[in-house]
Amino acid sequence: MTPSRRRLVGGLDLGGTKIQAVVLDGRRSVVAQARHPTPRKGGPDDILDALAATLAEACAEAGVETRELVGVGVGSPGVIDSRRGVVTGARNLPGKGAPIRMIAGLRKLSGVRAYLENDVTVGVMAEHALGAARGSNSLLGVWWGTGVGGGIVLNGKPWEGRGAAAELGHVVVKVGGARCTCGRRGCLEAYAGRGAMEIRARHLHRRGHKTELFKIMEKRGRERLQSGVWARALEQGDQMAIDLVDRAVEALGAGVASALNLLDVETVVIGGGLGTRLGDPYVERIREAIMPHLFADERPPAVRLVALGDLGGAMGAALLVPPSRPDRGSGAPRAPRRPARK
Amino acid sequence: MTPSRRRLVGGLDLGGTKIQAVVLDGRRSVVAQARHPTPRKGGPDDILDALAATLAEACAEAGVETRELVGVGVGSPGVIDSRRGVVTGARNLPGKGAPIRMIAGLRKLSGVRAYLENDVTVGVMAEHALGAARGSNSLLGVWWGTGVGGGIVLNGKPWEGRGAAAELGHVVVKVGGARCTCGRRGCLEAYAGRGAMEIRARHLHRRGHKTELFKIMEKRGRERLQSGVWARALEQGDQMAIDLVDRAVEALGAGVASALNLLDVETVVIGGGLGTRLGDPYVERIREAIMPHLFADERPPAVRLVALGDLGGAMGAALLVPPSRPDRGSGAPRAPRRPARK
Repeated sequence: MTPSRRRLVGGLDLGGTKIQAVVLDGRRSVVAQARHPTPRKGGPDDILDALAATLAEACAEAGVETRELVGVGVGSPGVIDSRRGVVTGARNLPGKGAPIRMIAGLRKLSGVRAYLENDVTVGVMAEHALGAARGSNSLLGVWWGTGVGGGIVLNGKPWEGRGAAAELGHVVVKVGGARCTCGRRGCLEAYAGRGAMEIRARHLHRRGHKTELFKIMEKRGRERLQSGVWARALEQGDQMAIDLVDRAVEALGAGVASALNLLDVETVVIGGGLGTRLGDPYVERIREAIMPHLFADERPPAVRLVALGDLGGAMGAALLVPPSRPDRGSGAPRAPRRPARK
Repeated sequence: MTPSRRRLVGGLDLGGTKIQAVVLDGRRSVVAQARHPTPRKGGPDDILDALAATLAEACAEAGVETRELVGVGVGSPGVIDSRRGVVTGARNLPGKGAPIRMIAGLRKLSGVRAYLENDVTVGVMAEHALGAARGSNSLLGVWWGTGVGGGIVLNGKPWEGRGAAAELGHVVVKVGGARCTCGRRGCLEAYAGRGAMEIRARHLHRRGHKTELFKIMEKRGRERLQSGVWARALEQGDQMAIDLVDRAVEALGAGVASALNLLDVETVVIGGGLGTRLGDPYVERIREAIMPHLFADERPPAVRLVALGDLGGAMGAALLVPPSRPDRGSGAPRAPRRPARK
């Protein structure tokens, strides 16, 4: 084993549709990667098998055995118990939220020490360490996707509160407002989450409002309004898509401004499926929607698109692995982390 | 000079209507206090004279000369530049926001080293160190008064961002909602600030809505709807007062819940003029208004009334003084702090 190999670490990003694996070297550069679809059937064991297989493929590309890695980090949706290494309540995965014994499972299947964290948190950590927020002391990550996830970095470290911080999607933007998928009223996610936007679009469509959204969806063989469907509809000038995205941007402006008025961070990074797909023009629109609500508006934070793209989550997960092989258990004790949806 | 005297520190709370001074001993107990009215005319020099006189009176009660104090901390409204020791933009004070050279001025008048911080921040620090949030690792202070001020303590230390954090009053609770005194729309303070509540009450009163609020105000010889006026009207069952306070409580519930969904702190402390005056029953009502919007509602934070009462601000200011006499300048360099209104 060469010295450089000794320092290789793995990262796994477990998403609702895909599993992304990376192998990073000691300089935190990606030396190999692999992507597999997330299993659609089965349960926790099938997820663990798929994670191990994706990691093994990336390791093969890097020319190492999985067990030669210093460790592997996993970014996961659901409620994270970093200490026990268990994920629960990840309802978009097969098994419908049944506990996934992530650290023990990967140890058994891959012979490698594993570290576990919330998927949005690791994505934000990657942008902080290696991406659009390099050098920022404080940071708010806005993961605009099916839901609206958040990640907070203060003094260079993730702030997780008692395990349920950074729930940006459930910041209230309208008292008595729209019903959120979480059951509460007026949450940011009720206006800006792609899931809530789709519910609203289907409701309006049923009531006779015209839109190309569902035709584009069907043409692509999809069952959901994925980010690419929204992007295409916007390109075609579809009025319903324009209106619903405008409403989402307005809500994002208010919710992110509220977070900034509380935290006054240096940098905001916009990511997530929809954020990444719509890209810089919409990052600029969100920035403009923040300004009317920003208290310290004479020196707004930088507002940037994520820089690491699809690999960010897996890269951030890899950063969970301590620089040198530790002698003790798998990760420091941490409080359970509730889900932050992408 | 006895050893115990050597460790006496002073604290000054500069408010819009009163100046409160305390002297604390080495065990952080109040050994003396004094209160003077804030000058209603003049400018920065008159404010400095009044601060020095109030401090001198408290020192006389403690049996020491002001210059024998280890130092004095000052909690002030306005934009705080801790490093330069200057307050600007405190528009409720005589001089209408003209710079007050606090540290240099007190040094000259009282011969004592001074330390400067935002008034809400020091009030929250006092509750954290000595009051209702003792032992909490993380804390949100809600100062419900003319405005809605906030204070954030994370990992036992105030979080001030780039100098403008904890602006709880300008968290957005309703996109496109009521106009705030800051000029923005939908801020928490536009619904819950005593100033905004008074504007709304005057507007409704002019339009013929019945209320006892202004009769109570006049009977007390006041020109403003002070907290005691609201409390009396509520006791009398005045419908306008009830409706406006209900509206404020609902907005506080949403705004504080948004902050909790982002920060997930252990403890919320409710203070400020109106919070303190209305007391525990309204703290309980705010707690109930938080719950429907709280994401991690299975383990809500403790929500408590401040414990230090009127002296909290001055006690918190005294805590700014380092435990032993430093050899260097007055306070560590810090970014300017924007106003957080009480």
